[in-house]
Amino acid sequence: MVIIMKPHAPKEEILVLKHRLEKENVQVNVSEGQDYCVLGLIGDTSKIETTKIQANVYVEDVHKVQQNYKLANRLFHPDNSVVNIDGRKVGGNELAIIAGPCSVESEEQIVEIAKDVKKSGAKFLRGGAFKPRTSPYSFQGLRTEGLELLKIARQETGLPIVTEIMSANMIEKFVEDVDVIQVGARNMQNFELLKELGKTKKPILLKRGLSATIEELLMSAEYIMSEGNENVILCERGIRTFENYTRNTLDLSAIPAIKKLSHLPIIVDPSHAAGLWWMVEPLAKAAVAVGADGLIIEVHNDPQNALCDGQQSITPNRFDNLMGDLNKLVESGIRQVYSTANV
Amino acid sequence: MVIIMKPHAPKEEILVLKHRLEKENVQVNVSEGQDYCVLGLIGDTSKIETTKIQANVYVEDVHKVQQNYKLANRLFHPDNSVVNIDGRKVGGNELAIIAGPCSVESEEQIVEIAKDVKKSGAKFLRGGAFKPRTSPYSFQGLRTEGLELLKIARQETGLPIVTEIMSANMIEKFVEDVDVIQVGARNMQNFELLKELGKTKKPILLKRGLSATIEELLMSAEYIMSEGNENVILCERGIRTFENYTRNTLDLSAIPAIKKLSHLPIIVDPSHAAGLWWMVEPLAKAAVAVGADGLIIEVHNDPQNALCDGQQSITPNRFDNLMGDLNKLVESGIRQVYSTANV
Amino acid sequence: MVIIMKPHAPKEEILVLKHRLEKENVQVNVSEGQDYCVLGLIGDTSKIETTKIQANVYVEDVHKVQQNYKLANRLFHPDNSVVNIDGRKVGGNELAIIAGPCSVESEEQIVEIAKDVKKSGAKFLRGGAFKPRTSPYSFQGLRTEGLELLKIARQETGLPIVTEIMSANMIEKFVEDVDVIQVGARNMQNFELLKELGKTKKPILLKRGLSATIEELLMSAEYIMSEGNENVILCERGIRTFENYTRNTLDLSAIPAIKKLSHLPIIVDPSHAAGLWWMVEPLAKAAVAVGADGLIIEVHNDPQNALCDGQQSITPNRFDNLMGDLNKLVESGIRQVYSTANV
Amino acid sequence: MVIIMKPHAPKEEILVLKHRLEKENVQVNVSEGQDYCVLGLIGDTSKIETTKIQANVYVEDVHKVQQNYKLANRLFHPDNSVVNIDGRKVGGNELAIIAGPCSVESEEQIVEIAKDVKKSGAKFLRGGAFKPRTSPYSFQGLRTEGLELLKIARQETGLPIVTEIMSANMIEKFVEDVDVIQVGARNMQNFELLKELGKTKKPILLKRGLSATIEELLMSAEYIMSEGNENVILCERGIRTFENYTRNTLDLSAIPAIKKLSHLPIIVDPSHAAGLWWMVEPLAKAAVAVGADGLIIEVHNDPQNALCDGQQSITPNRFDNLMGDLNKLVESGIRQVYSTANV
Repeated sequence: MVIIMKPHAPKEEILVLKHRLEKENVQVNVSEGQDYCVLGLIGDTSKIETTKIQANVYVEDVHKVQQNYKLANRLFHPDNSVVNIDGRKVGGNELAIIAGPCSVESEEQIVEIAKDVKKSGAKFLRGGAFKPRTSPYSFQGLRTEGLELLKIARQETGLPIVTEIMSANMIEKFVEDVDVIQVGARNMQNFELLKELGKTKKPILLKRGLSATIEELLMSAEYIMSEGNENVILCERGIRTFENYTRNTLDLSAIPAIKKLSHLPIIVDPSHAAGLWWMVEPLAKAAVAVGADGLIIEVHNDPQNALCDGQQSITPNRFDNLMGDLNKLVESGIRQVYSTANV
Repeated sequence: MVIIMKPHAPKEEILVLKHRLEKENVQVNVSEGQDYCVLGLIGDTSKIETTKIQANVYVEDVHKVQQNYKLANRLFHPDNSVVNIDGRKVGGNELAIIAGPCSVESEEQIVEIAKDVKKSGAKFLRGGAFKPRTSPYSFQGLRTEGLELLKIARQETGLPIVTEIMSANMIEKFVEDVDVIQVGARNMQNFELLKELGKTKKPILLKRGLSATIEELLMSAEYIMSEGNENVILCERGIRTFENYTRNTLDLSAIPAIKKLSHLPIIVDPSHAAGLWWMVEPLAKAAVAVGADGLIIEVHNDPQNALCDGQQSITPNRFDNLMGDLNKLVESGIRQVYSTANV
Repeated sequence: MVIIMKPHAPKEEILVLKHRLEKENVQVNVSEGQDYCVLGLIGDTSKIETTKIQANVYVEDVHKVQQNYKLANRLFHPDNSVVNIDGRKVGGNELAIIAGPCSVESEEQIVEIAKDVKKSGAKFLRGGAFKPRTSPYSFQGLRTEGLELLKIARQETGLPIVTEIMSANMIEKFVEDVDVIQVGARNMQNFELLKELGKTKKPILLKRGLSATIEELLMSAEYIMSEGNENVILCERGIRTFENYTRNTLDLSAIPAIKKLSHLPIIVDPSHAAGLWWMVEPLAKAAVAVGADGLIIEVHNDPQNALCDGQQSITPNRFDNLMGDLNKLVESGIRQVYSTANV
Repeated sequence: MVIIMKPHAPKEEILVLKHRLEKENVQVNVSEGQDYCVLGLIGDTSKIETTKIQANVYVEDVHKVQQNYKLANRLFHPDNSVVNIDGRKVGGNELAIIAGPCSVESEEQIVEIAKDVKKSGAKFLRGGAFKPRTSPYSFQGLRTEGLELLKIARQETGLPIVTEIMSANMIEKFVEDVDVIQVGARNMQNFELLKELGKTKKPILLKRGLSATIEELLMSAEYIMSEGNENVILCERGIRTFENYTRNTLDLSAIPAIKKLSHLPIIVDPSHAAGLWWMVEPLAKAAVAVGADGLIIEVHNDPQNALCDGQQSITPNRFDNLMGDLNKLVESGIRQVYSTANV
């Protein structure tokens, strides 16, 4: 940690701060510059609250050197993590494709789509049972009934199921019924939920919040991991910017950034990012090229009658073509691969 | 609702869509333009999901005319709402000032600050018991013990208490112990929590999410109101932008905007917006001038040793000066007042 | 154009507005809804200023249906445009790679790098002579001397040269000396410069402004085209968002968006987007996969001693590897290709 | 400047960098931390390019301590600057109000509005002659004829005139004809223009760019000042964010921030910020309360027929009421005043 004192900060106040910091078991190097005096802290600064230091009226600014996340940090865990779900891997050399409708609507719908996406090569089935909707008057999902239908689709296809949790109250049920528990963008900083999920061993798919920084996403992963659950898969799904031609702005730079900072696998959701079905295909290719460990894609057999997000769902036929292209991309050998050696 | 068809959309497809929409009990006016054909929908379109229409491959764009919020909408409720908390009003002509520390730290701390802010004219005491922190390694609040200390401070001063809830599990306790339940920015779209709070009659202080639009804030208020609880107070606390000199960018334009769109009271949090104690004073004055119904301000008797957010807390002495200025501002009569007549 | 009147707008005021609009040679359809009255305008609305209509106190909102750009619009020019520079094409099926240093530093430097990038397959040489720098105290480029050195490098390698113009005063010289004139992000809305460039026939590389919407980028292209110069190449180079791990956030969704809206070629600048040399490679691959018509990449033979932007420059060796990968990507056939048929 | 080396950076590479930096006449303190080694630079680091250091593959991150602006920096110029225009002051204790139409349309229009705003207490007349418009098909201003009309209005009222320059070619004429030369948001980083303006002695009104940081705004002021012109007035006019209910998001926190960082006067443009006439009044009050040195407000006698930006113009009558309120606000004594003592 580096602390920049205000110009003209009195020497005695600098010493007071220095002594206070030394009591927290760090060494403090004082460098007197022309206009500014700078304190360099050496040792484990992870427990020092920067806000307390910023509250000091003689402090101009504080820069952290160490990241606040430890368990998610590649520095202390150089090798790529691989999350294993019934033998299917997320984070290794294989590409993990999750596909399915925005929301589960009926047994017929979810089973049919599950069979379709499986045939095209999807490894996991997605489908919303509990839906976070901006409006209380929009379809809120089939809820527990939706979970039952997902289980039927899993039985029919063997595909592990991925679905979103919206409340800590449901954890027990989700742990029993579901293969990967998704935390949606709006709950990325629902810390009580994260802590409770950390007490399970279930794989967690943690989506980046609408305006979360890369660091905040990793801190939310740390919440889960610090409670004992290391099976975290991150997901980039677009961030909110001034550009509103697309629903969100897909931040593909986040993939190499996270690969450098963390060992956790990260996948991309091109459907929610763009919010436009005809962008899913090019963005999916880009995501694989940039080095994502997988994709989560909305596929619907009848987008115009979908109860949710039809505008960003592709048909099984388009999905099948896309999978063909993605396979070619993988085979071409140009997909960016990250390892300790090259990040 | 207005639907713009793609250029060259086949006539028969336009008719198919028209008929489908008419089944939802709206009238559809077709206007054939030079390049685009436009459908104008008349009637109650609030139940029509725009995403389904956008999923139609012949549709270029959809514009809503009606807002999706009804109970929070000034159109259907022209007069300003006033939330009454033990006889203290938020939303009327009086200015509601909420003050106190970021987090409750000890009985001595909270009682002393409560007495200080009361003496200066605060009407409510704030203090965090459950704290949403970016890092799992930061101080998480005294939790239920914090609630007990707040109750002591209320007993000593008579100030109603405002504190943040982080999980639906705690609602029963909060309803019993607390006067105003705060929903933090990170939980603004925790819809399960909002629904549960809607089933109580407690006043809810709903903070705007870090990147929530004004419309989304009102939709979250609608979640609470649609379950039966109309005691909602909104709070602008800064939004996330590219500018990072301040912690967030305080969006004071949101005050006149919300006054026009909604009848709900709205207050401003200058402490979290700026994240810098020396900005609280000027921003508080600006917020009152622009027409906010109140303020929520972090006050700490020893900011440098605060367990949380000391960098944005002002001392009781500064708070006292500020209250003097705010009173002068109110007395000058220039504070913007909103009523049906002028919005 | 669709105009939404305020609820309770008096009928006579609606008629006044209707008649005023009809004088501008458009037909006005009035749809009376439950709460809102909507006016649909049919005909050529491109000359109607929306701001005038918004100034009407009885108007709630205005939505445009027609885009304001005509010459850049795919609607009126369905086929992809190809810009031809001495026989080298930007916008066709080939991938146009522009490479070179941020700024020209010396004859030796620019000639050496030019030879290197040519050998690896670059089709154009970039190099800054006039440099827009945030600080007046930073290196401002070799200016006219830099132009001379670029010409030497062109002579040595045959590569057409691409360099940035910063002032309309220099147009004559640039037209004579340069093959593609670049308009930087900070000048994207320097309309006087755009108009002057529109009077030449030189190919213009127009970079997206730091916070320009896709529509604004196309409107700036329209400025150039409306003066008679249709040789416009667009460039996505990252936009400014709250995320500051990267210098900018590369918006790859802009590629399919622009392909749909416009016939103009668009390339990507991964160097300025990320501002981090180690991200250039994965982002370049993603840009090609998503369907960009080319790339502009900063290559320097000694990044640590570069006078400008060394942190985002890759070495000739890395560039050579990247070109190998990009060729494989093109050969794999999965690169997204846009044509009227599929956008 | 503080340089954080990568974990495991070889000692010899750290020494190489240290020696290289020492050659630039700074002292380098090396602090070996647990995981990171940190270099603290002491001395005048303003000439060291951070990008060169970031290009070093062993460097993790670089933090600046010194700001890059010197002439605009309050650190080296503690007292508030006051810009004097024919005896009228911007930056002192008085409030400087600039008012007038978006664009000059006719002699009658500009003279009538000038008289109106003068009567209400405006100290300067604004009016656009050269208009930067997003679309080439929108009204571009009366250009040189507009300048002539402004001069007539000045003669009739005695109000100094403020108008925007769009090209360095026009400087000579503007210096002769105009009292304050405005640089618009889109030209804030048109560095060639800034340099040329720096060679004059004319007062410059420099508007913040649409997505310019506070630091970048000050760096652009530095461009003008470093050429010898210290008569710079800054202007906050809203920044681009995800919120699009308003045209831009007015960033009032920028006022206290800039007062702390710089001695230059800063005014606020509530008209362009909101883009909505009914928000001008509350935002103007807030801007004065927060401590702005003045306001620039669009006033039009017939907004519905204004050739430009009618939707954000207020009538002379409303302006008169607003001036009354602003006077009361100033008299109340609560307006934030900044001086070296309190920033």
